[in-house]
Amino acid sequence: MTSKHLSTGSPDPPLVPGKLRLYSMRFCPYAQRAQLVLDVKKIPYDVVWVNLTKKPEWLAQKNPLSKVPVLQLEEGSILYESLIVSDFLDEAFPETPLYPSDPLLKAKDKLLVERFNSVILPFFKIVFSSTVQPEESAAILDGLEIFEKELEKRGKPFFGGNRPGMLDLMIWPWFERFELLGIMSDEKFVIPRGRFLRLDKWEDDMKVDDGVRVSFLDVDKHAKYVQTRKATGTPAYDSILES
Amino acid sequence: MTSKHLSTGSPDPPLVPGKLRLYSMRFCPYAQRAQLVLDVKKIPYDVVWVNLTKKPEWLAQKNPLSKVPVLQLEEGSILYESLIVSDFLDEAFPETPLYPSDPLLKAKDKLLVERFNSVILPFFKIVFSSTVQPEESAAILDGLEIFEKELEKRGKPFFGGNRPGMLDLMIWPWFERFELLGIMSDEKFVIPRGRFLRLDKWEDDMKVDDGVRVSFLDVDKHAKYVQTRKATGTPAYDSILES
Repeated sequence: MTSKHLSTGSPDPPLVPGKLRLYSMRFCPYAQRAQLVLDVKKIPYDVVWVNLTKKPEWLAQKNPLSKVPVLQLEEGSILYESLIVSDFLDEAFPETPLYPSDPLLKAKDKLLVERFNSVILPFFKIVFSSTVQPEESAAILDGLEIFEKELEKRGKPFFGGNRPGMLDLMIWPWFERFELLGIMSDEKFVIPRGRFLRLDKWEDDMKVDDGVRVSFLDVDKHAKYVQTRKATGTPAYDSILES
Repeated sequence: MTSKHLSTGSPDPPLVPGKLRLYSMRFCPYAQRAQLVLDVKKIPYDVVWVNLTKKPEWLAQKNPLSKVPVLQLEEGSILYESLIVSDFLDEAFPETPLYPSDPLLKAKDKLLVERFNSVILPFFKIVFSSTVQPEESAAILDGLEIFEKELEKRGKPFFGGNRPGMLDLMIWPWFERFELLGIMSDEKFVIPRGRFLRLDKWEDDMKVDDGVRVSFLDVDKHAKYVQTRKATGTPAYDSILES
């Protein structure tokens, strides 16, 4: 977990016998989704961190979109796209299933993952533009309201019940980063603590989950990533993690 | 299948006992995906066609995005998003499964459905703008090349083997409409028949599949839809079908 992000010119490390290989970038919320599934399901894997500004040549060979996450299996097969990788892991390693067994409830969880895009898009806009349009902050608050109500309806600590399920894991990376909204917008927009009481409690519970803790980073590290990326175009991937 | 598209002011028809309810629009390729799954799996359903220009008031209550497909179950539960609806149907009605049972092969099929978006986007651009940018036609041909090679690699008539599977059905609606490229661009871009030999054969086989035939429309009907939509903003949903 502490190795450096590989960049242009770095060779692709050989696969480790008995382990899946995850190609990721330490600050990418989409790649974190796949890592969360691996960690929560306790699937043996190693991570190769990838510099997405100066990409290693072999990344495009693995994923024509040159993005992370990329999952490589021992026999060489490759998968990408965070939701496809996550669903694959859940099916290929059926212990600790992350979806409800009822197809209808499973489909409803997938719909909620889709609906969370209405939060993700304005989140990125605010964080990377450092400006706040009223429709962006409204979209985030409206989106979170849906999840607050859903949690209330389900009446359990997690969307997945008494432990985090797929829906919890697929939306979590943005909750880990929500304080970036205030930091990057100079406090022009913050999600008011206390407005979404159930989500606040859920967030506290998620943070201490054994699987979720593995990839957790404090918000100041996320902020340094965004700030160095915005200032120089080249995030200080590794030095942020050493500090 | 011959009832009219319901528009603003039309009441929502009562559900039919023993049948799933699909809300669709006769010319929408995404909604057709769900219908193809219903037809191929022979799941009992009825369709309510929806005018997407003058939408019935109840559409937004069923789907906050006000789009089709929408699937309503007998007990009232509602699902939307073409891929989520299609996967749900496949899991809830496990006879005639549409995915490979191996999770890795299933994930690879889902990846290919995602990759087909690189064809869908330029397809819509050309059809609705009636202009052809070189990068758009190149993207379509490059995308089709991927599917041609994949079909060759699989060595069977369909991506799903000896009968259409989920991947076949999820990409089919655009193949049914590909001749629109030439019609709408005044023949500035056509997909050359003969360039993708396996896909040409696959297309012929798909067209005569019992399930696929149910929703099939001739390209001149699709063209009238696009033409009336572009000319007046209000497609002549029903008169096209009567002609």
